[in-house]
Amino acid sequence: MDVLVINGPNLNALGSREPEIYGSTTLADLEAGLVAQGAAAGLEVGTFQSNHEGEIIDRLYQAQQDGAKFVIINPGALTHTSLALRDAFASVRIPFIEVHISNVHAREEFRRHSYLSDLAVGVMAGFGGYGYTMALDFLINRLELWG
Amino acid sequence: MDVLVINGPNLNALGSREPEIYGSTTLADLEAGLVAQGAAAGLEVGTFQSNHEGEIIDRLYQAQQDGAKFVIINPGALTHTSLALRDAFASVRIPFIEVHISNVHAREEFRRHSYLSDLAVGVMAGFGGYGYTMALDFLINRLELWG
Amino acid sequence: MDVLVINGPNLNALGSREPEIYGSTTLADLEAGLVAQGAAAGLEVGTFQSNHEGEIIDRLYQAQQDGAKFVIINPGALTHTSLALRDAFASVRIPFIEVHISNVHAREEFRRHSYLSDLAVGVMAGFGGYGYTMALDFLINRLELWG
Amino acid sequence: MDVLVINGPNLNALGSREPEIYGSTTLADLEAGLVAQGAAAGLEVGTFQSNHEGEIIDRLYQAQQDGAKFVIINPGALTHTSLALRDAFASVRIPFIEVHISNVHAREEFRRHSYLSDLAVGVMAGFGGYGYTMALDFLINRLELWG
Amino acid sequence: MDVLVINGPNLNALGSREPEIYGSTTLADLEAGLVAQGAAAGLEVGTFQSNHEGEIIDRLYQAQQDGAKFVIINPGALTHTSLALRDAFASVRIPFIEVHISNVHAREEFRRHSYLSDLAVGVMAGFGGYGYTMALDFLINRLELWG
Amino acid sequence: MDVLVINGPNLNALGSREPEIYGSTTLADLEAGLVAQGAAAGLEVGTFQSNHEGEIIDRLYQAQQDGAKFVIINPGALTHTSLALRDAFASVRIPFIEVHISNVHAREEFRRHSYLSDLAVGVMAGFGGYGYTMALDFLINRLELWG
Amino acid sequence: MDVLVINGPNLNALGSREPEIYGSTTLADLEAGLVAQGAAAGLEVGTFQSNHEGEIIDRLYQAQQDGAKFVIINPGALTHTSLALRDAFASVRIPFIEVHISNVHAREEFRRHSYLSDLAVGVMAGFGGYGYTMALDFLINRLELWG
Amino acid sequence: MDVLVINGPNLNALGSREPEIYGSTTLADLEAGLVAQGAAAGLEVGTFQSNHEGEIIDRLYQAQQDGAKFVIINPGALTHTSLALRDAFASVRIPFIEVHISNVHAREEFRRHSYLSDLAVGVMAGFGGYGYTMALDFLINRLELWG
Amino acid sequence: MDVLVINGPNLNALGSREPEIYGSTTLADLEAGLVAQGAAAGLEVGTFQSNHEGEIIDRLYQAQQDGAKFVIINPGALTHTSLALRDAFASVRIPFIEVHISNVHAREEFRRHSYLSDLAVGVMAGFGGYGYTMALDFLINRLELWG
Amino acid sequence: MDVLVINGPNLNALGSREPEIYGSTTLADLEAGLVAQGAAAGLEVGTFQSNHEGEIIDRLYQAQQDGAKFVIINPGALTHTSLALRDAFASVRIPFIEVHISNVHAREEFRRHSYLSDLAVGVMAGFGGYGYTMALDFLINRLELWG
Amino acid sequence: MDVLVINGPNLNALGSREPEIYGSTTLADLEAGLVAQGAAAGLEVGTFQSNHEGEIIDRLYQAQQDGAKFVIINPGALTHTSLALRDAFASVRIPFIEVHISNVHAREEFRRHSYLSDLAVGVMAGFGGYGYTMALDFLINRLELWG
Amino acid sequence: MDVLVINGPNLNALGSREPEIYGSTTLADLEAGLVAQGAAAGLEVGTFQSNHEGEIIDRLYQAQQDGAKFVIINPGALTHTSLALRDAFASVRIPFIEVHISNVHAREEFRRHSYLSDLAVGVMAGFGGYGYTMALDFLINRLELWG
Repeated sequence: MDVLVINGPNLNALGSREPEIYGSTTLADLEAGLVAQGAAAGLEVGTFQSNHEGEIIDRLYQAQQDGAKFVIINPGALTHTSLALRDAFASVRIPFIEVHISNVHAREEFRRHSYLSDLAVGVMAGFGGYGYTMALDFLINRLELWG
Repeated sequence: MDVLVINGPNLNALGSREPEIYGSTTLADLEAGLVAQGAAAGLEVGTFQSNHEGEIIDRLYQAQQDGAKFVIINPGALTHTSLALRDAFASVRIPFIEVHISNVHAREEFRRHSYLSDLAVGVMAGFGGYGYTMALDFLINRLELWG
Repeated sequence: MDVLVINGPNLNALGSREPEIYGSTTLADLEAGLVAQGAAAGLEVGTFQSNHEGEIIDRLYQAQQDGAKFVIINPGALTHTSLALRDAFASVRIPFIEVHISNVHAREEFRRHSYLSDLAVGVMAGFGGYGYTMALDFLINRLELWG
Repeated sequence: MDVLVINGPNLNALGSREPEIYGSTTLADLEAGLVAQGAAAGLEVGTFQSNHEGEIIDRLYQAQQDGAKFVIINPGALTHTSLALRDAFASVRIPFIEVHISNVHAREEFRRHSYLSDLAVGVMAGFGGYGYTMALDFLINRLELWG
Repeated sequence: MDVLVINGPNLNALGSREPEIYGSTTLADLEAGLVAQGAAAGLEVGTFQSNHEGEIIDRLYQAQQDGAKFVIINPGALTHTSLALRDAFASVRIPFIEVHISNVHAREEFRRHSYLSDLAVGVMAGFGGYGYTMALDFLINRLELWG
Repeated sequence: MDVLVINGPNLNALGSREPEIYGSTTLADLEAGLVAQGAAAGLEVGTFQSNHEGEIIDRLYQAQQDGAKFVIINPGALTHTSLALRDAFASVRIPFIEVHISNVHAREEFRRHSYLSDLAVGVMAGFGGYGYTMALDFLINRLELWG
Repeated sequence: MDVLVINGPNLNALGSREPEIYGSTTLADLEAGLVAQGAAAGLEVGTFQSNHEGEIIDRLYQAQQDGAKFVIINPGALTHTSLALRDAFASVRIPFIEVHISNVHAREEFRRHSYLSDLAVGVMAGFGGYGYTMALDFLINRLELWG
Repeated sequence: MDVLVINGPNLNALGSREPEIYGSTTLADLEAGLVAQGAAAGLEVGTFQSNHEGEIIDRLYQAQQDGAKFVIINPGALTHTSLALRDAFASVRIPFIEVHISNVHAREEFRRHSYLSDLAVGVMAGFGGYGYTMALDFLINRLELWG
Repeated sequence: MDVLVINGPNLNALGSREPEIYGSTTLADLEAGLVAQGAAAGLEVGTFQSNHEGEIIDRLYQAQQDGAKFVIINPGALTHTSLALRDAFASVRIPFIEVHISNVHAREEFRRHSYLSDLAVGVMAGFGGYGYTMALDFLINRLELWG
Repeated sequence: MDVLVINGPNLNALGSREPEIYGSTTLADLEAGLVAQGAAAGLEVGTFQSNHEGEIIDRLYQAQQDGAKFVIINPGALTHTSLALRDAFASVRIPFIEVHISNVHAREEFRRHSYLSDLAVGVMAGFGGYGYTMALDFLINRLELWG
Repeated sequence: MDVLVINGPNLNALGSREPEIYGSTTLADLEAGLVAQGAAAGLEVGTFQSNHEGEIIDRLYQAQQDGAKFVIINPGALTHTSLALRDAFASVRIPFIEVHISNVHAREEFRRHSYLSDLAVGVMAGFGGYGYTMALDFLINRLELWG
Repeated sequence: MDVLVINGPNLNALGSREPEIYGSTTLADLEAGLVAQGAAAGLEVGTFQSNHEGEIIDRLYQAQQDGAKFVIINPGALTHTSLALRDAFASVRIPFIEVHISNVHAREEFRRHSYLSDLAVGVMAGFGGYGYTMALDFLINRLELWG
């Protein structure tokens, strides 16, 4: 696996969850699109979703063992609360991009702070499901970053 | 199922946990009472307890699929820390009542803020285990809320 | 008198005041319902409303002299500003329940803090006029609290 | 009555109270001038002053019953402390203009925040007693606002 | 009248109110003692107590008209909330001493701030009912302050 | 020139800019009305608008050299950010009135603080374009202020 | 012109300015690339850079007159300080994407707050000069947004 | 020794130091007056002044060994900064009265907080040098406090 | 079991995780050393590690049932975020020592606050893996604490 | 040019602006003195003043191209507000000294924070116009700093 | 001398000072135990106690001259207030361990912040007098730290 | 003595203390240079250093008695903590200049606030040991300040 795409709590409900904010694409469709986009560029893309902080951390250590080169993560609400997830990224040392579907800056005040952003390569918000595509495109076009 | 009663972390220990604060009724007794109260009014009441934030979120999506109409929740300490649980309620769009056994306002400062209350139908604290009964009574007597 | 129901500033306007928030029941109807509910349980329920902080405090001392056992109070905006009312409750030592018709947690930030809640037996918000009924029901069903 | 002019605590002392800040016009003179200004424009102007928060609130409900169309209010120190007065304006739904004689922004820090301003049509400070005249002039010249 | 002694909200209950904090002397006894202490020094001492902010402000203006030279005030909870009372003292320009029976610094955090203290001649707290005596003694022994 | 009317950033767009907030009068119309109002009272009124903080400061020094007696300014967003404009007013020592078309107190929190207000003669907000007229009327009717 | 790319203060120095943070591509190269990328998709891309807040605001109004459909902006330090620029975007009502070359979340605390983000369609940071390319790609691939 | 009077930093300069704030009585005169006042009541009064926090703490332990019953302290600027002095009072368990010559509430903001007040029997400020006399008078007249 | 040693999120990676901060000892080695140290003193030491907050809480209730006398815990990032873990310790009433391998005070600001420390017997940070040894040594040498 | 002396907004008015704070020397005289002081030491000193943030930034880039070795800057009010100026100094990498004529620490609270000071070689305030002389003297006498 | 043990203000009173917090061991006994513990390991342990911040700083410089390798310090209240002591440790560059007898995290809020901890090797609190023993044990068992 | 140069805590270690921050000049050399600089201008310069707050305050009173005209002080860490030193300067009324060797603005946040600066004539930081020379030069060249 080259790139692991992680979606955090409540992103299982994409498509039905507050569609005026998150759009109508389901998570399965979104993940399938990313796998195809990666394959077209010769990259193996894995996907993972969980509502459990612990499972996401466990999955990161698994990714480290599997030799994953990059992570694209939408941490959901854990963005704003999970120091354990932050520590996990610092521990596995896999570079990552932080993606938010909605423009978090235009919502509640508490969505304006992220415990992950300063460790990330880059951060984006507000581009809908297409944001994941942009993140993967960045990785594909910036191969010099892959060491 | 019509109403799901959710208890969060450490409420498994009701009856033995700090009884001067939480009383001596066990969770099993409390849940049994609510099921009976519901049945007497022709409502099916389900119950769930977990110390895992992720399991509670998963359970909410299950309730959504099961067609639950209302949730009564005592989120325990997640009240003050879990944005993921907040997002889950916003996602499943099941109206809920937030119940606290103790008077959280008379305890530590950090218990005064809830990430759920502004999404709730109503909030109550300090009525002991009887608070759940009051919440269920409200649902029974306010059938016009059921749509 | 066994239970005194106090309504603070602006609750005289119940029924006409911002009905989308406070509902269409008038204060007179609400008070009559509580008197009847109490009478059915053998309790004498008194009622009082004032837009004057000082009159409410005076009324509390009168209640103390009258031997009132409990107070149910919706302090209105005094909830957030009146230390004098807080001191009065500490002085008369009559246990009380704090009731808010609307869900104060879903409104302005300044409605999130109460100077009374930590002295109360219990607090509830968001159950409309039915909240008073629930509070009185609690007192009726928790007679062991009456000493 | 078309317009009610309300003056809050300590404005009874206009003319003698800190004249270097509030000027030497007495409240009686100021009120008489406004009544005359209104009469010249065919409007009935009523006036009221009290040092009691509760009386001002009661007076607002009376004005609502009397069919008053507008209120011009100098809330005095209640500007910064009275949520009950704020709630009263939200309840009676009479549009109002908030007037301060002195420039409150050039005085103590606590005078910089008003609990009423965001509900007002407009706010002014620093124009001396003439500010009331300006407010009444605004109402006279903006008759389209009268519905 | 030379000196007016004002007691604010809840001080009517002296002697019965939280005696472990406020002691067992009643307000009537305390006031009688001060009148006698003043008389022995040839000063007329008046007393006033109210639970109404507005009445205390009205009383201050009356005292101004009566030619009172000094005020000794225990504002009770108004200490921490009443800007209107502060403005009244600035308006009547009668020098005053602020007295608290209990040591407010050893109680709730909100009792640590006073809106009156910076306008007072002096402030004292924690000396029980004897604090009033000390304040009156100060006025008697500092006659050069009387202009 | 007797009075200079200054409009800050984005007020060039009056009439088309967020008309639900700022109304449909254009800046040119508003300025023409003020010039006419001044002329009717025998005062020369000048007008200036810029989106550049530096140009407004330069203009103030020019006004000082031109002998302008008063400034009426709507600083737009510079109200909340420009210490340099504040310093310029302190430097040129021309008295000024601060006008806001909309009720800034009813909008974003950051619009509640002004770096200019404590230096102003008076401040007003929420009276629409008519506020400028009121400010000029104040200057015309308070000629004793002109020294 | 279809899309206007705006660069704020100090971005004139791209390529030489702190290259360890901002990379070695010059602004001219970056702009040329975007013009070419747009042309390939049939879009006319305009570019603008200034160290003057006022000039950027003026340019936005010009773009409004020119019928520009979208703006891509890197506001530089104005991100954190310019309410006037925020108001300008609210006034011209041209949708925009906010781009930062560096990961602002990993730098000084004051770079974490933006006065523009909540008005933006989307925000991104940390993708180097390629971030502009991603933003333009988003506009090209989301033509349905163009109305 | 029955009562120890401690004066903290800069009180050596009483009489010459900012006499408009602190008056013209010297420390020697003030101390002599207190010794005489104590002697008249049959109490031995000791005095101590130092600009060194450490010496004051050492002196407190000496007082403990000497069997001092009470301390009257004007801690000067240490009031606001010295946790070590606070700990010393908690350690020696000698009850104390905190005296300030000036009305600290009417001066800089940092003088409003005391690290000692909540441990004190009582606190007073603003009574000039006569404040020490009042404190000693309190001890003389409240002999029942001496255990 | 006498003593349970709990390690929270990311401590599974000890030895490989940021070794410049956490050292090169693996968790397995560390746990084996503690078991041996305990055995030498006649104590049974159990160990547990999880990245799941819920599992740690479940484990604490299991320890309560197993009769564990003490807990040594390194909560990892949960130190700073988990009120549920705090509540669990308050519920099971097993005394515990809080250990941090690195000196958390020399790292990010958010590591300076712990939700557990005020409930702990003692807290230590910065002693590397040897800190666990010190904690166990404390328990062995302070047998009088075992009741 | 060896040294560029920059004066920010409102310093054009030196000599006439608030002379009790800024003294009576004009900017022209001050600049002439610095040019002469530099010439005496064999250094070419350039001067620049503007009320426009953008012009000052542009001037810094010009200075970089001209090979200026040092900047002495009095940023005026931009000290406290201009992140763009801060970024410009970080970009041009010309060492600079920050000079304030008045003692900014003895004035408004907002003058206590500078966005430039931590990038400066040194900072001084309160030495009047002579402060520039001291700054230039430092550069002349610390030639080893010139590389 | 190899290790210097420093005790700050009020630790002279160990054994008699608040024994429910600090225990009944005297400082002399505690120091003797540490000297013996060091001697058994071949280390010379010196001790020092003072209530004077200045003396402790002087002593640190003396220790530097004496070639002390480590310091174990209980700074008492200076922990929370003394930047001078912090600077002294940064100056002498002797590594140190910070020990608190009581669990400072379970006491007043102001005891939660230390100006020394981020410079320390390690920090511990709550282990009573045995904490010093643990610190010295750490130094003895981590000889590789001694360089 | 005309000018007294005071150095606070830890400045005894100049030359050896963190030389990358404070340089390699010793305090003795620095003091000797200032004495010589003063002598060349006909001024007697005295010097003093102490790690004890109390000794510095005592020395200030001695300087007052000795008729010192100015003080140049580097208060070291007392800058940020000593209100007693501030009070001493207000008491002795000797004008002073505050000097910091390093640029305190580029270091820890707590070094950004000074309790002395608003009382000083002027403040400087970051000019190394030469800053004292600049301060003395200011006094020599501003003889008109000497009264």
